[in-house]
Amino acid sequence: MPSAISVLTLLTDFGAQDHFVASMKGVILGINNQARIIDVSHRVKPYSVEEAAFLLNSCYHYFPDGTVHVVVVDPGVGSSRRGLLVSTSRFFFVAPDNGVLTYIFENELSVEVRQIENRQFRLDSEGATFEGRDLFAPAAAWLTRGQTPGAYGRLVADYEKLQIQKPEVRDGALHGRVAYVDRFGNIITDVTPADIQALQTITKRKNIAFEIGGVTIDTLKTHYEQGSPDKPNALINSSGYLEVFLKESSAAERLGVKTGTPLEIQ
Amino acid sequence: MPSAISVLTLLTDFGAQDHFVASMKGVILGINNQARIIDVSHRVKPYSVEEAAFLLNSCYHYFPDGTVHVVVVDPGVGSSRRGLLVSTSRFFFVAPDNGVLTYIFENELSVEVRQIENRQFRLDSEGATFEGRDLFAPAAAWLTRGQTPGAYGRLVADYEKLQIQKPEVRDGALHGRVAYVDRFGNIITDVTPADIQALQTITKRKNIAFEIGGVTIDTLKTHYEQGSPDKPNALINSSGYLEVFLKESSAAERLGVKTGTPLEIQ
Amino acid sequence: MPSAISVLTLLTDFGAQDHFVASMKGVILGINNQARIIDVSHRVKPYSVEEAAFLLNSCYHYFPDGTVHVVVVDPGVGSSRRGLLVSTSRFFFVAPDNGVLTYIFENELSVEVRQIENRQFRLDSEGATFEGRDLFAPAAAWLTRGQTPGAYGRLVADYEKLQIQKPEVRDGALHGRVAYVDRFGNIITDVTPADIQALQTITKRKNIAFEIGGVTIDTLKTHYEQGSPDKPNALINSSGYLEVFLKESSAAERLGVKTGTPLEIQ
Repeated sequence: MPSAISVLTLLTDFGAQDHFVASMKGVILGINNQARIIDVSHRVKPYSVEEAAFLLNSCYHYFPDGTVHVVVVDPGVGSSRRGLLVSTSRFFFVAPDNGVLTYIFENELSVEVRQIENRQFRLDSEGATFEGRDLFAPAAAWLTRGQTPGAYGRLVADYEKLQIQKPEVRDGALHGRVAYVDRFGNIITDVTPADIQALQTITKRKNIAFEIGGVTIDTLKTHYEQGSPDKPNALINSSGYLEVFLKESSAAERLGVKTGTPLEIQ
Repeated sequence: MPSAISVLTLLTDFGAQDHFVASMKGVILGINNQARIIDVSHRVKPYSVEEAAFLLNSCYHYFPDGTVHVVVVDPGVGSSRRGLLVSTSRFFFVAPDNGVLTYIFENELSVEVRQIENRQFRLDSEGATFEGRDLFAPAAAWLTRGQTPGAYGRLVADYEKLQIQKPEVRDGALHGRVAYVDRFGNIITDVTPADIQALQTITKRKNIAFEIGGVTIDTLKTHYEQGSPDKPNALINSSGYLEVFLKESSAAERLGVKTGTPLEIQ
Repeated sequence: MPSAISVLTLLTDFGAQDHFVASMKGVILGINNQARIIDVSHRVKPYSVEEAAFLLNSCYHYFPDGTVHVVVVDPGVGSSRRGLLVSTSRFFFVAPDNGVLTYIFENELSVEVRQIENRQFRLDSEGATFEGRDLFAPAAAWLTRGQTPGAYGRLVADYEKLQIQKPEVRDGALHGRVAYVDRFGNIITDVTPADIQALQTITKRKNIAFEIGGVTIDTLKTHYEQGSPDKPNALINSSGYLEVFLKESSAAERLGVKTGTPLEIQ
């Protein structure tokens, strides 16, 4: 169990135009005015638990030990879905029980999962449409004040997980998919160097090739500037995934590719 | 009069792409590098004093006592319109005298309103197009350093207020309007449970119904997941207002409704 | 050489939807959890070194002495282009060697420019696509911990500079250009009062006039409210540049003007 420091991150689908994020921050600072609040993103596609899970997984481990990560992408707000407090060896996570923490459950060796039940850590308020403010923000803020997870509620074993399709070798080919498209239009796949190695071991071939948007890619670059601005290029990116890009232009737009598009590597 | 702590919020129509917000923050940190600056929003519709007033009202009271709230939506920048420093029992507000603080004047029992005149708390600079940086940011930052309101300038009694149309019962119906549309396309009205109760008392009817975008709504849900994705639903939201929504989709877009659209409840 | 305090600014083209900025902040807080991180903007046009240079120049000097300014607009990421640490009398700058610091080199009397070579200040990670996280963030964070520039690497004299075209008087006219268009559609030129004075001195005329989008402007306003909403107006803005605007509406859109459009003043 880590000791909470005062760093607290927020990842939501609330956008930047409304008062939602500010209300959460107000509540947090009302409980701990020394909290250091970092916005991961508030631009998650509305209701997309999958996208939030992916973004959280991309950055949570870069934060200092004891960071409290709060995720509020929550189509079931106000229903009977539970609020969770998850402790790992390094971090705390506060989120609805809807699968948004799936990668945490998969990556971390030891997780303690509790339901947030104690009404002491909850804001009293009318309405049930804004648990980001009323449930998750205060629960997280009290953690940064040193409150222990045991005080929040009972242990939970049947928490939700997303079915995340993993790349697999089948019929002599590696089957992956597009996991995310970033601001630059770079196409991030779910394929890792280990997956490619598995394919090479099984097929006993050294060369690999794959087709995307009607174009065949058979070499890997090491950085963007080596790439062509006209023909799609690939590299292993700094998150450790196979990524398809165009030099200084949007590959996703050019190739008509989006999250979920399948990818077959041979 | 509250004691200022170091929490300072910013609400502007400056957007996120330009240097305006950063310049304000630089000035603030130059005066108090311990200030904790929270962005409420910088996406207010350009020049919309009404929208800024609404957003401020939605979140200011969630912040800790002593917070300095700075609002800069200021079409009259550089003209003779005054800069105001308003103190309430819990908060400070720094803003142009253009009605953006109307809800504060209406909600708060005791307000002290002063004109920011003392040039000591002002940045010397050429041009008169950026008082967010030159007037409001330094005035607010000096407050977080413990400067007292009396030092800023004379008391003002004739400050500006917006004419905010309130829901009213007329001819046996409650007449309200759409106050805001949020990122999710939820339609937030200005109608509160107290307004509905007033209608019920006057008409001696228990059931209420209203039409929006050609559809009649006659029941209230308690949370979003209960709603239909195809037919508009309503609930009382966590700000205490009647809200119309579609489950996981934009009601405003579907119904062609926007801020100001009238609403008649029977 | 300034003493670093804990204020650190970030200016990138990473956008607000992805995990990139959060990953940088995580790394920074992992090194110094007392760092105060300020976002200048993450909306720089992708790959636009020119726009980032302009934005940095607009605000860096408003920050307190000892601020570390980090700029990551970096089409050459992972190539052999160097990472720079620049110290001036008041600030530190951490950025790729691609010209993004051109205005700093021009404005500041004394600059010490070093290459970031010491691998101690670098994150060990696979891939070469994200030096914002792996190189620039840790280099900057260690500065806020008091690390001295000398520890980072050798002095560099042949750093990159953009060719920035300056306004000039030619054939009895002042030739400038549009330097930036802001969120409001205000057209910011690169022309200063000193340039206009130079024209007046050379031509021995007091009156000036210029044409933009087919309209002639021959007087200067002092603030926006004085302007017409229909006919373009001009003033000297609070950054000290000639700016063309429409009252409460977008001049750039109306006049079809964008960054780089030439301007001839007579």
